[in-house]
Amino acid sequence: MSHADDICLDEMRHVRLGFPEIIYGEFKSADQIARLVATHDASGKDLLITRLDGSRLPPDLRGGTYDPVARTFTLRRHPRPPASPAVAIISGGSSDRPVVAETLNTLSFLDIGATCVQDVGVAGLHRLTDRLDDLRVYAVLIVIAGFEGALASVVAGLLSQPVIAVPTSVGYGVAAGGQTALHAMLASCANGLLVTNVDNGCGAALAARRILRCGS
Amino acid sequence: MSHADDICLDEMRHVRLGFPEIIYGEFKSADQIARLVATHDASGKDLLITRLDGSRLPPDLRGGTYDPVARTFTLRRHPRPPASPAVAIISGGSSDRPVVAETLNTLSFLDIGATCVQDVGVAGLHRLTDRLDDLRVYAVLIVIAGFEGALASVVAGLLSQPVIAVPTSVGYGVAAGGQTALHAMLASCANGLLVTNVDNGCGAALAARRILRCGS
Amino acid sequence: MSHADDICLDEMRHVRLGFPEIIYGEFKSADQIARLVATHDASGKDLLITRLDGSRLPPDLRGGTYDPVARTFTLRRHPRPPASPAVAIISGGSSDRPVVAETLNTLSFLDIGATCVQDVGVAGLHRLTDRLDDLRVYAVLIVIAGFEGALASVVAGLLSQPVIAVPTSVGYGVAAGGQTALHAMLASCANGLLVTNVDNGCGAALAARRILRCGS
Amino acid sequence: MSHADDICLDEMRHVRLGFPEIIYGEFKSADQIARLVATHDASGKDLLITRLDGSRLPPDLRGGTYDPVARTFTLRRHPRPPASPAVAIISGGSSDRPVVAETLNTLSFLDIGATCVQDVGVAGLHRLTDRLDDLRVYAVLIVIAGFEGALASVVAGLLSQPVIAVPTSVGYGVAAGGQTALHAMLASCANGLLVTNVDNGCGAALAARRILRCGS
Amino acid sequence: MSHADDICLDEMRHVRLGFPEIIYGEFKSADQIARLVATHDASGKDLLITRLDGSRLPPDLRGGTYDPVARTFTLRRHPRPPASPAVAIISGGSSDRPVVAETLNTLSFLDIGATCVQDVGVAGLHRLTDRLDDLRVYAVLIVIAGFEGALASVVAGLLSQPVIAVPTSVGYGVAAGGQTALHAMLASCANGLLVTNVDNGCGAALAARRILRCGS
Amino acid sequence: MSHADDICLDEMRHVRLGFPEIIYGEFKSADQIARLVATHDASGKDLLITRLDGSRLPPDLRGGTYDPVARTFTLRRHPRPPASPAVAIISGGSSDRPVVAETLNTLSFLDIGATCVQDVGVAGLHRLTDRLDDLRVYAVLIVIAGFEGALASVVAGLLSQPVIAVPTSVGYGVAAGGQTALHAMLASCANGLLVTNVDNGCGAALAARRILRCGS
Amino acid sequence: MSHADDICLDEMRHVRLGFPEIIYGEFKSADQIARLVATHDASGKDLLITRLDGSRLPPDLRGGTYDPVARTFTLRRHPRPPASPAVAIISGGSSDRPVVAETLNTLSFLDIGATCVQDVGVAGLHRLTDRLDDLRVYAVLIVIAGFEGALASVVAGLLSQPVIAVPTSVGYGVAAGGQTALHAMLASCANGLLVTNVDNGCGAALAARRILRCGS
Amino acid sequence: MSHADDICLDEMRHVRLGFPEIIYGEFKSADQIARLVATHDASGKDLLITRLDGSRLPPDLRGGTYDPVARTFTLRRHPRPPASPAVAIISGGSSDRPVVAETLNTLSFLDIGATCVQDVGVAGLHRLTDRLDDLRVYAVLIVIAGFEGALASVVAGLLSQPVIAVPTSVGYGVAAGGQTALHAMLASCANGLLVTNVDNGCGAALAARRILRCGS
Repeated sequence: MSHADDICLDEMRHVRLGFPEIIYGEFKSADQIARLVATHDASGKDLLITRLDGSRLPPDLRGGTYDPVARTFTLRRHPRPPASPAVAIISGGSSDRPVVAETLNTLSFLDIGATCVQDVGVAGLHRLTDRLDDLRVYAVLIVIAGFEGALASVVAGLLSQPVIAVPTSVGYGVAAGGQTALHAMLASCANGLLVTNVDNGCGAALAARRILRCGS
Repeated sequence: MSHADDICLDEMRHVRLGFPEIIYGEFKSADQIARLVATHDASGKDLLITRLDGSRLPPDLRGGTYDPVARTFTLRRHPRPPASPAVAIISGGSSDRPVVAETLNTLSFLDIGATCVQDVGVAGLHRLTDRLDDLRVYAVLIVIAGFEGALASVVAGLLSQPVIAVPTSVGYGVAAGGQTALHAMLASCANGLLVTNVDNGCGAALAARRILRCGS
Repeated sequence: MSHADDICLDEMRHVRLGFPEIIYGEFKSADQIARLVATHDASGKDLLITRLDGSRLPPDLRGGTYDPVARTFTLRRHPRPPASPAVAIISGGSSDRPVVAETLNTLSFLDIGATCVQDVGVAGLHRLTDRLDDLRVYAVLIVIAGFEGALASVVAGLLSQPVIAVPTSVGYGVAAGGQTALHAMLASCANGLLVTNVDNGCGAALAARRILRCGS
Repeated sequence: MSHADDICLDEMRHVRLGFPEIIYGEFKSADQIARLVATHDASGKDLLITRLDGSRLPPDLRGGTYDPVARTFTLRRHPRPPASPAVAIISGGSSDRPVVAETLNTLSFLDIGATCVQDVGVAGLHRLTDRLDDLRVYAVLIVIAGFEGALASVVAGLLSQPVIAVPTSVGYGVAAGGQTALHAMLASCANGLLVTNVDNGCGAALAARRILRCGS
Repeated sequence: MSHADDICLDEMRHVRLGFPEIIYGEFKSADQIARLVATHDASGKDLLITRLDGSRLPPDLRGGTYDPVARTFTLRRHPRPPASPAVAIISGGSSDRPVVAETLNTLSFLDIGATCVQDVGVAGLHRLTDRLDDLRVYAVLIVIAGFEGALASVVAGLLSQPVIAVPTSVGYGVAAGGQTALHAMLASCANGLLVTNVDNGCGAALAARRILRCGS
Repeated sequence: MSHADDICLDEMRHVRLGFPEIIYGEFKSADQIARLVATHDASGKDLLITRLDGSRLPPDLRGGTYDPVARTFTLRRHPRPPASPAVAIISGGSSDRPVVAETLNTLSFLDIGATCVQDVGVAGLHRLTDRLDDLRVYAVLIVIAGFEGALASVVAGLLSQPVIAVPTSVGYGVAAGGQTALHAMLASCANGLLVTNVDNGCGAALAARRILRCGS
Repeated sequence: MSHADDICLDEMRHVRLGFPEIIYGEFKSADQIARLVATHDASGKDLLITRLDGSRLPPDLRGGTYDPVARTFTLRRHPRPPASPAVAIISGGSSDRPVVAETLNTLSFLDIGATCVQDVGVAGLHRLTDRLDDLRVYAVLIVIAGFEGALASVVAGLLSQPVIAVPTSVGYGVAAGGQTALHAMLASCANGLLVTNVDNGCGAALAARRILRCGS
Repeated sequence: MSHADDICLDEMRHVRLGFPEIIYGEFKSADQIARLVATHDASGKDLLITRLDGSRLPPDLRGGTYDPVARTFTLRRHPRPPASPAVAIISGGSSDRPVVAETLNTLSFLDIGATCVQDVGVAGLHRLTDRLDDLRVYAVLIVIAGFEGALASVVAGLLSQPVIAVPTSVGYGVAAGGQTALHAMLASCANGLLVTNVDNGCGAALAARRILRCGS
């Protein structure tokens, strides 16, 4: 089995599309992770690993940082100064914070500035309606919600930017696992809502990047 | 097979609980329906049949009325004067009208006054928020919605009365059949929301009756 | 990320609807829980946290109490004398006790008196039928059942008060996770049955409060 | 393609186990049905076809009878005098009559006497409890129910004979198709309940025959 | 909460139907289990607890025995001499042994003799066909199988006794959890097959008892 | 019931967000459709109705046009000259044409130019790879595919623009209804793919409009 | 929209892999079908269309033949003499004949000889075991079965050739749609069983061709 | 319970079909595993155990080897020299390595040579297209993929050998558990694709053996 090849491929693909290296870490062993980090460190390349349990981190992080809430590992050589926010991440409660954090870290890795608006929710609508003017300045809106995911419908009904809806696995009973939020977002009456897989904050950030580049 | 018994039973049960006779008509043959109507007519009793296709109506309605939108047949001997509205039925669009109509007809059969508020929806929130004070006067709120069913969450977040959520089978793709609206209503972040089966407007009306009697 | 805001919002929402503060604790970290408790203690406000593992409790409970069966944490400043019971909680077996306890603790937090009737079940119907007269005095009935959830149908067929059915995740095979009890309650032949999400004892209590206020 | 073989096989199988010929008719063409009937008529053998639409009946029934409610076709050469009832078929409402009729016709084809008790239901429990002594005389109980199927749990909780539960596809919303009744019967708290596929009245009759022979 | 009542009820129910006490142990706490065992020991009554983890066993078993494979606890005062086998339990492999053991222990608790035939399987059909004559002597056949559950179809096609099919949760991928075996058994072409919930060996034993009593 | 209100609302909402009027036609009666068309004609406003069966069209189309493949009705007062294409619609076969047509008609109604690339598919990859340079000039890519929906993954792996994936209900067996294509698109390894509900060509067009405005 | 392109592509693909042209006809309009047939006729190429309703056949079949059982249309210029059978198609009953016929017609279109063995089934095992030696001469076995699909497990347990299992949508209740047969075949204990989509006889024939070429 | 019999059976079955002994280890106890290994060692027979946790390995491996990635235990007496590769295993990333390793180890146990091509994926198509000529030399292709499983469609569209698709449980959200990859592979537009259960690398290897023998 040729691990070096495995790493090469991902890199080549991203280089072609202009994306830096992002690796899905969930099913990789500690051994595989350690090799990935060492290879990137040696070649001086940036690296983001998502869905990585802290228990599988290599002993030597090679200067990278691990965020236990987002479960991301970031190796960044030449961090640029913070970009002005182009994306607003809107979520309803603190339970969705891991997905919010994964989205933020991925945007940051992609050099995209973002703001979090976390205290709005379907049950406290005035909070959202009070901030509509503030929200209009962001080019892309990412709505992150579990349970019944109604926040995405509400946001897309009130604002006209691109809205990326990320269902989360937060909830219990019929909401467990995120299927209800996912289906509610897909079935939304609000027009032009776009949806990612459950908990896929990284994918939402990458989609935001595609949209932001399309306008530049 | 003893059809008379079948009819008797339902009647006795409802009499005991104080409910007039309501029959689920969907899987009954035209023959069975005709017999039910004739029996009730002969004994001078009221009767409501739900989910009844017009094609299975008896040739002689015995003075009853059939509503093709609601698919209900009503035999009512001594209609009382209209009661003052105790229930508000809130829905977002005209596609849900069959379920709204079944709910209204059942409430009417139970001598409960009701008002319809049909032009509110998650995509036009100001319509709902503009009417909050009007809605506060109703003892019970019934929210009827298909697709992602977010309207129920919004209503329960804004108003403190009992809220009965009725998912409808209106929608396509993942919303087809009403499962998404049902699950979204069950998983709602809004507190104290209660839910019925898909398209069960009759059940919502009967539940409203239980609640209204509980306060009297 | 602005945790203070997060707490504020919930409070403001509940104050508006007249509900005291109830927080869903399942996906919150120990850190977030500790901050919530400290903030409420400092401001002298009541607090109920549901679905909270004992392992995430703060070291200093600030005078609150934790119930390991119900998995609830309660911070109550000025407990009132016990109210006379307005709600009867009906369940079939001791396996459903965690959901029964969550319902009881939430009702108590809301100053609503309740009685538990736990030794009735579909397999011992005479126990239920023997108590019908006793049960008629309660304004609201909450039926809590797992497996096939038939108890809810039976209770709603025998009594005319509002009946809130709470399916539980107790069971195995096709009953695992509570979907069978949930669907059976939604599909019940008994009229006017209202249903919550699986294991949602807290939601049933909040719905009972809405109903009890509606009659006052 | 060898249709004669196809017919032969079924016969040989049933002869070996002592069962007369029963054919599942749903997916067979009018042509195939006509050939089956003619072959059996020619060889003087009995035949029962289930789930057969009237539109696919052969022009010449060869002395057989078609029951449009049960959708069964029966060719019976030497009908025996009616047997004393060994099986009680218990159902709650007239909507389930097609499945009740298929069960009855199959039992009759197998020379097993049966009684129908159709006016009992979870919503009218006293009807069932009033008849418990009558029901104790039957060797086997078949309970046929749609919606939430709670009747099977109740019967098995009150009586000690073998109970065969047949879920039906009667219902709407989450009950549509019979999955909820099926799952509720499988998950029943009542002990020793046995279940067939949805709408499988024929299978329940054949199982009853196995049980009745086992005791003889 | 009245635990004594809880215990009483189950007992009274079983006494009425003639069943000794069997308790479902899966969701009960160690505390509840200890109380159940002590109460039965004190009153000299027999007790079977199913689906009980060894970690929740009371320190003092009061003379009962725990079977870690079957996860059953049995308290038996006056064990009778072994009955001659009336039931054959047929399974294909050693992975299903926990369910086989639960079935055996329940039958033994009910004083029903049983034989295990464990080395037959769809992939080794001659093993089954070689033993057909031996199997004909048993009054009831219980077939226990996971994966695709085809063994039940084969047995019911070859033998004419009552056949109770118990799907197990043994398998992976689409077979994980037992749904595939369950559905395959329900959908079986073989006639008169009866099915229990997944892994419900106890239920199969209780059903066998109903059948055996029906013939006596 | 206030139909005028119903129409008003939709209009007001769209006006606020800058969207012209689009109505979901599937569950509306011929009567409701006729009223909608007449009202818009009278007030001189544009209108697009989607998912409308030809059988429910009003006798007088008031100058609008109906497309039976797309099942859309368009009332357009002042059609602008065709815009230069900003969107490429990529699909694999002619079976998906109804969804392609709905997307095209919606884009046209929104004054967005589009090109169709319909002869690419996973089974003929060179067709897609041969056109990569042509495709790079479009600001937004909409990929429409049924069956296993793999085309969306391939396109997003090769091109860096925003990619909107629309699963279709084309297929049979496990693909029937579009769930497999939907889930495959959501689970795609390709980065930044965004997904709509099954067959939601209209939603994809509206999302494209949000994205195109965001860059202007 | 470029239909000519659409046709070209399929052809080019198949030519490259050496497959003649096969078109999936289910979602294509009568218009599209007529164009496909005319184009192929004009260019003298062979064509097979599957899943084609007779109602969408063109008026001029251009010498092709339509099989209403298989729902296939075949245009064959230079039919070769029948090949000696390399494939055995094994099915249990006449209900599965449409899928058997589609498989046969596809094999014939691919110049592969085949034999049908239709009178074997799990309920008549001796029929299958009596023919084992006959079946050993075929290079590839295709097993077609609905309901619980157990025949595939049995065949793969008795014979060592490649076995392709095709689940059919024949059945009712939990078997409706073919999911149970599909899952049972995938979960089979028998080793090395390979499975296609539900009712995909055409795919099984194409897979057989791949296998037969691999050995030549 | 007769374990010796259990072992005998499997052996006899495989001997008849010419397969060496392969045991499914997932639900067997450490005790059962130890007995299996000892019995085979004593009789000098080869043995492969799949899906075996390292924690259930016997203390004495009797010369066998355990692969913790593949979770296989192999006891091989007379290993033959490596065969020339007849099978190519194609997978996209390192997350699928456990299933790749199970496939490889099973092929090796069956004396079939295999090559792994692990650095191809839908997102890096040129890697695959660059190697098409290399891949044409293998008699059988096994494609192993999780998430949306699109790689199988692409490979079957480009190459004409038998293609066995193995979905893996790698993924999250809608991809969790492998159902999406499974369904996508079954619904693939690519012709003649054959599919196994999720993660069933062992089954794919056994199917490859059937195919390879069929050509010899």
